Amino acid sequence: MSSSYGENIRLTIFGQSHSPAIGMTLEGIPAGNRIDMDALRKFLGRRAPGGASWSTPRKEADLPEFLGGIVDDTTCGAPLAAIIHNTNTKSSDYEELKRVPRPGHADLTAQIKYGGFQDVSGGGHFSGRLTAPMCIAGGICRQLLAQEGISVMARVLSVGDIVDGGELTAPLDDKLFPAVDDKQGEKMKELIDLVRSEGDSIGGVIECVVTGLPAGIGDPMFDGMENRIAQIVFGIPAVKGLEFGAGFEVAKKRGSENNDPYRVEDGRIVAESNNAGGILGGITNGMPLVFRAAFKPTPSIAKEQKSVDMKAVKDETLEVKGRHDPCIVVRAVPVVEAAAAIACYDAILGRKKEI
Amino acid sequence: MSSSYGENIRLTIFGQSHSPAIGMTLEGIPAGNRIDMDALRKFLGRRAPGGASWSTPRKEADLPEFLGGIVDDTTCGAPLAAIIHNTNTKSSDYEELKRVPRPGHADLTAQIKYGGFQDVSGGGHFSGRLTAPMCIAGGICRQLLAQEGISVMARVLSVGDIVDGGELTAPLDDKLFPAVDDKQGEKMKELIDLVRSEGDSIGGVIECVVTGLPAGIGDPMFDGMENRIAQIVFGIPAVKGLEFGAGFEVAKKRGSENNDPYRVEDGRIVAESNNAGGILGGITNGMPLVFRAAFKPTPSIAKEQKSVDMKAVKDETLEVKGRHDPCIVVRAVPVVEAAAAIACYDAILGRKKEI
Amino acid sequence: MSSSYGENIRLTIFGQSHSPAIGMTLEGIPAGNRIDMDALRKFLGRRAPGGASWSTPRKEADLPEFLGGIVDDTTCGAPLAAIIHNTNTKSSDYEELKRVPRPGHADLTAQIKYGGFQDVSGGGHFSGRLTAPMCIAGGICRQLLAQEGISVMARVLSVGDIVDGGELTAPLDDKLFPAVDDKQGEKMKELIDLVRSEGDSIGGVIECVVTGLPAGIGDPMFDGMENRIAQIVFGIPAVKGLEFGAGFEVAKKRGSENNDPYRVEDGRIVAESNNAGGILGGITNGMPLVFRAAFKPTPSIAKEQKSVDMKAVKDETLEVKGRHDPCIVVRAVPVVEAAAAIACYDAILGRKKEI
Amino acid sequence: MSSSYGENIRLTIFGQSHSPAIGMTLEGIPAGNRIDMDALRKFLGRRAPGGASWSTPRKEADLPEFLGGIVDDTTCGAPLAAIIHNTNTKSSDYEELKRVPRPGHADLTAQIKYGGFQDVSGGGHFSGRLTAPMCIAGGICRQLLAQEGISVMARVLSVGDIVDGGELTAPLDDKLFPAVDDKQGEKMKELIDLVRSEGDSIGGVIECVVTGLPAGIGDPMFDGMENRIAQIVFGIPAVKGLEFGAGFEVAKKRGSENNDPYRVEDGRIVAESNNAGGILGGITNGMPLVFRAAFKPTPSIAKEQKSVDMKAVKDETLEVKGRHDPCIVVRAVPVVEAAAAIACYDAILGRKKEI
Repeated sequence: MSSSYGENIRLTIFGQSHSPAIGMTLEGIPAGNRIDMDALRKFLGRRAPGGASWSTPRKEADLPEFLGGIVDDTTCGAPLAAIIHNTNTKSSDYEELKRVPRPGHADLTAQIKYGGFQDVSGGGHFSGRLTAPMCIAGGICRQLLAQEGISVMARVLSVGDIVDGGELTAPLDDKLFPAVDDKQGEKMKELIDLVRSEGDSIGGVIECVVTGLPAGIGDPMFDGMENRIAQIVFGIPAVKGLEFGAGFEVAKKRGSENNDPYRVEDGRIVAESNNAGGILGGITNGMPLVFRAAFKPTPSIAKEQKSVDMKAVKDETLEVKGRHDPCIVVRAVPVVEAAAAIACYDAILGRKKEI
Repeated sequence: MSSSYGENIRLTIFGQSHSPAIGMTLEGIPAGNRIDMDALRKFLGRRAPGGASWSTPRKEADLPEFLGGIVDDTTCGAPLAAIIHNTNTKSSDYEELKRVPRPGHADLTAQIKYGGFQDVSGGGHFSGRLTAPMCIAGGICRQLLAQEGISVMARVLSVGDIVDGGELTAPLDDKLFPAVDDKQGEKMKELIDLVRSEGDSIGGVIECVVTGLPAGIGDPMFDGMENRIAQIVFGIPAVKGLEFGAGFEVAKKRGSENNDPYRVEDGRIVAESNNAGGILGGITNGMPLVFRAAFKPTPSIAKEQKSVDMKAVKDETLEVKGRHDPCIVVRAVPVVEAAAAIACYDAILGRKKEI
Repeated sequence: MSSSYGENIRLTIFGQSHSPAIGMTLEGIPAGNRIDMDALRKFLGRRAPGGASWSTPRKEADLPEFLGGIVDDTTCGAPLAAIIHNTNTKSSDYEELKRVPRPGHADLTAQIKYGGFQDVSGGGHFSGRLTAPMCIAGGICRQLLAQEGISVMARVLSVGDIVDGGELTAPLDDKLFPAVDDKQGEKMKELIDLVRSEGDSIGGVIECVVTGLPAGIGDPMFDGMENRIAQIVFGIPAVKGLEFGAGFEVAKKRGSENNDPYRVEDGRIVAESNNAGGILGGITNGMPLVFRAAFKPTPSIAKEQKSVDMKAVKDETLEVKGRHDPCIVVRAVPVVEAAAAIACYDAILGRKKEI
Repeated sequence: MSSSYGENIRLTIFGQSHSPAIGMTLEGIPAGNRIDMDALRKFLGRRAPGGASWSTPRKEADLPEFLGGIVDDTTCGAPLAAIIHNTNTKSSDYEELKRVPRPGHADLTAQIKYGGFQDVSGGGHFSGRLTAPMCIAGGICRQLLAQEGISVMARVLSVGDIVDGGELTAPLDDKLFPAVDDKQGEKMKELIDLVRSEGDSIGGVIECVVTGLPAGIGDPMFDGMENRIAQIVFGIPAVKGLEFGAGFEVAKKRGSENNDPYRVEDGRIVAESNNAGGILGGITNGMPLVFRAAFKPTPSIAKEQKSVDMKAVKDETLEVKGRHDPCIVVRAVPVVEAAAAIACYDAILGRKKEI
């Protein structure tokens, strides 16, 4: 049941990189919500590979086709179902990987788990391509949140050692490279170009901010906002770390520094700082919800690597063919927004049961 | 549904800090498993506050009383149910918090979510005391894993800026202060003493290692080992960050550095490094599963803090009375082990359905 | 995960007939709901065995003790947890059943499923006694529904061939024998007395009616009101059949007879008949929700029966000792109400997410 | 979350009668299982309408197209996803129903629940057509069960007052009219013809038998075999009653009659009768699992009916246009088999976690 998420809505993602289609079902979206299809396609376009230097040249149309759940672009109460057809696939690139697993990739673990029956082409169900249907669901949730004044935005916070500057206070949907400080963004692009020219890849950090969330969303213990977001964000391939608010820095702080003091401002209770990342006891406190996810470098690199022949059980070297993103982080920005939007929308629906 | 966890087993935690009892139910443990009650009590003892300088002086007997699910200390197939009676509670300490929320605590968010009906005494359902029933469930799962050669161990990796040395390769159950390098442990204790004397608190990091896990455990996407562990670990109060393997460091690495190369060793495929933390594509690869959780400093501190009067909606200062742990990290070590054990045991049961 | 129920609330039932206690946790009840404890105890009293001729003489105090989730008899948002201590148990009566299973009981299937580790005393987790915690949860939900003008009521519709007369239009909480027509109730009691004097038992049917439910509650397909009620009602031991509205009679009808015609009455749309039992497409239509559950005769009878020796694998005869209800149906009336109330309350919470 | 089912596998059904496609996702089927596509298409063919007198003339190709989860007709561990394109739809037939609801249909309840945004064409998500994807999932599960010697079979037990004779001991897949006694089947067909000629419809009962199930499958309380089967069978449109084994007849029986006596036969423990329908305490006892489901007559009839104008809120008469099955029971036989197969396969996977 690995491919389903949610308590009050339920997202199921299906398909493999080179199967006839990938897609998603999304249950629980109330009837009568109009979806802006142009905005959705634009959102998906931010994830799609293009000609940009940091992404793979494979062309993905990534136009979702809705099979159910909407009438005249409006939700009808039935589960939403949408697919994206897979085209332009070259399965032959991957046959060799059944014998020699790519280090850092799921080739070995899939082989063990599925006993050799896994779909190895293009990474199968483990492919980053599966984030496209997550973006369909997330793009819809993000629209619905926006209607309630809730804004879900993310940025490339760092690539390698290059760190973005400034604060993320507005969505970067229209930027080709979603960094707040364009000069830093330019340096990141240069680093990505360099890494690509070396046949290598590089990791990075994405920061996500959700503003406008009312206080009182989320639950204690296992369904807190951290838990909910963690369960979906770790579903994005390559994420190896996640932190909220001050994150790992809290470990070095004293309580007197880390506690966000309250004060009254214009008749409302606000916190003077946001080390909590907008979450206390799993529940939103009305401050922006802030988290950061660490992405590992794409495991598929052109450089020669040490691996093994799984059948002969002997050492082997490997050069990954095909063309791969030298840095997945840029295209993953809308995916992180999608994940956050799904988690927040789900939690908000849950809040409706209480009041 | 915030207080339930699990896919193949289901843990439900109930009670508040000062309610008649706290407890847990645990469904799905197969019949015929003998529980070593002495070992379980010893495990719970590691979490209990004692006279040690870093913990609150409140005495907790923390002896679990099983109400169902076992016959002659052996699971009978019915849900396990166990409680710990709450005694030695002083509710009067907490009345004031209904009006003036402690910064960094869930007082404000609970007030909004539950409309003033929350149980405020001792933190209610948000209290760290609720980790005791998690340790009952986790202590049982840890025993069951040990029978299959799987060892779940954790340590204090850091308190403030003091970092433990060495590698965690064996459980530290018998150490009063669970650090690998006792000299560093001594320094951490000194820091905690200092912080306590200042009426302050301090955060830290716990590292957890699970050895002996077979390859092939866990699922892709939303039920990967990272997702499963994240959902329960973020259920431990005060956790604000979580990372696996090389964690946030992956963001700075190149693929050629971060990919763990495979080689054949004694006829088995092993990885030469463990940046993946034992997990690829959500699935264990046979290497030790490694993660670290960042704990914020206890929000309850004696120092005067800025807060607000929620009723009068005006600024207010607050001094938290009562006695609180200056550093929760030490007592949280078995809690993290419990969380990891529950997540791993659940995933292992899931694996049985596939083969 | 057999002992949990619910989508928007989650009920978990634990304990065995002769374990230290039985109990339940109930998550998802919104904070701020006052529970009338006297009414709850009275509701539980209707299920408890007494001196009445149709029930077992075992005395059950059945007073629930709340361990968590309430403050001053008011829900605080944390999971409700309540237990009933088991007393007056005589485990020695049951030892023999480990060898020779009672026909019609779960002795044989539990032996196979749990490999001999099941708690056999008093039926263990299969005991009808486990319906007491269901009545705690159900009694609470029934109170909450009543506050919204929704009335959950049930009656003994038949015992053997004796059928109650009249229509069920108001709760029978105050009747010792919950039949609408007291004359028929008297005949049923006489039949039960006769059956008991013969060392035998007898089955019956319970009818349940829920009035005041708004239209629009429930979902299509697998979470329709029929599905939701079925999943919990078949959790009551001894239920072997369930039907809604005209039930099995619909199979003999023509569409022109079975379709409930609509008409306008006082500006509201009503149905002229209620063959649908208040449910169309899984969703309430505003008419009373009506269902009937068939209960088998108590399998524990004094009469000699043919069974087997499971260890020696040879034929054996059995006389069940101890004292058992000759007809469980009477005491099951509040249990059916409890089940219906839980299912309806859960579905009503779900409705809140949509509007 | 109405459209998902299952604990160890998870089925999600999507689409509406006249949306671009209907389909299903099915998670949890272990990798390496070969699906016989011809057999699957044949199974689906039994549900499809044809030229037979009892079914609607609408032609459905009903050929499933797999989008994911299989490679070379073999499961690869990823979720199975399959769709059936909707063609030959005439939406204009249905516009009027938005104003005047068909008695006995979900038109009114959908209007209230979805606020007028429901997809009304062809019954939308409530259409019997949605049982086709259930048959894809069920056909696969039935194949997998057959490989373990488990046979899932159903028959038309009655149409109106005409009752089939004989016992169901082998699948009737090759019969055009699936009754055991062909003479009785002939009479049923005649009745259906008569009813159709009158512009009316008629109900019936389907009996399902599962042989070969090992003892020990299913769980106590809310996940017993009865509960599991009930939750999915009531998801088939038109089912209003469900009974296991002796069913409603148990209510009239004495314990001494109803208890199935055990005896030893060829070294195995067997029951001499099967009033329990193969289930005791929710768990299979090794006898055939037997249940019966009552189907109401198709609500769509040509005869004039009393209804209301929902907008003008006044009485109205209605004649349903289009062509509809006069008796859904015949085509529902494989649907009931599908539902039973899904429930049994899910429960069998669950059993693997225990042993």
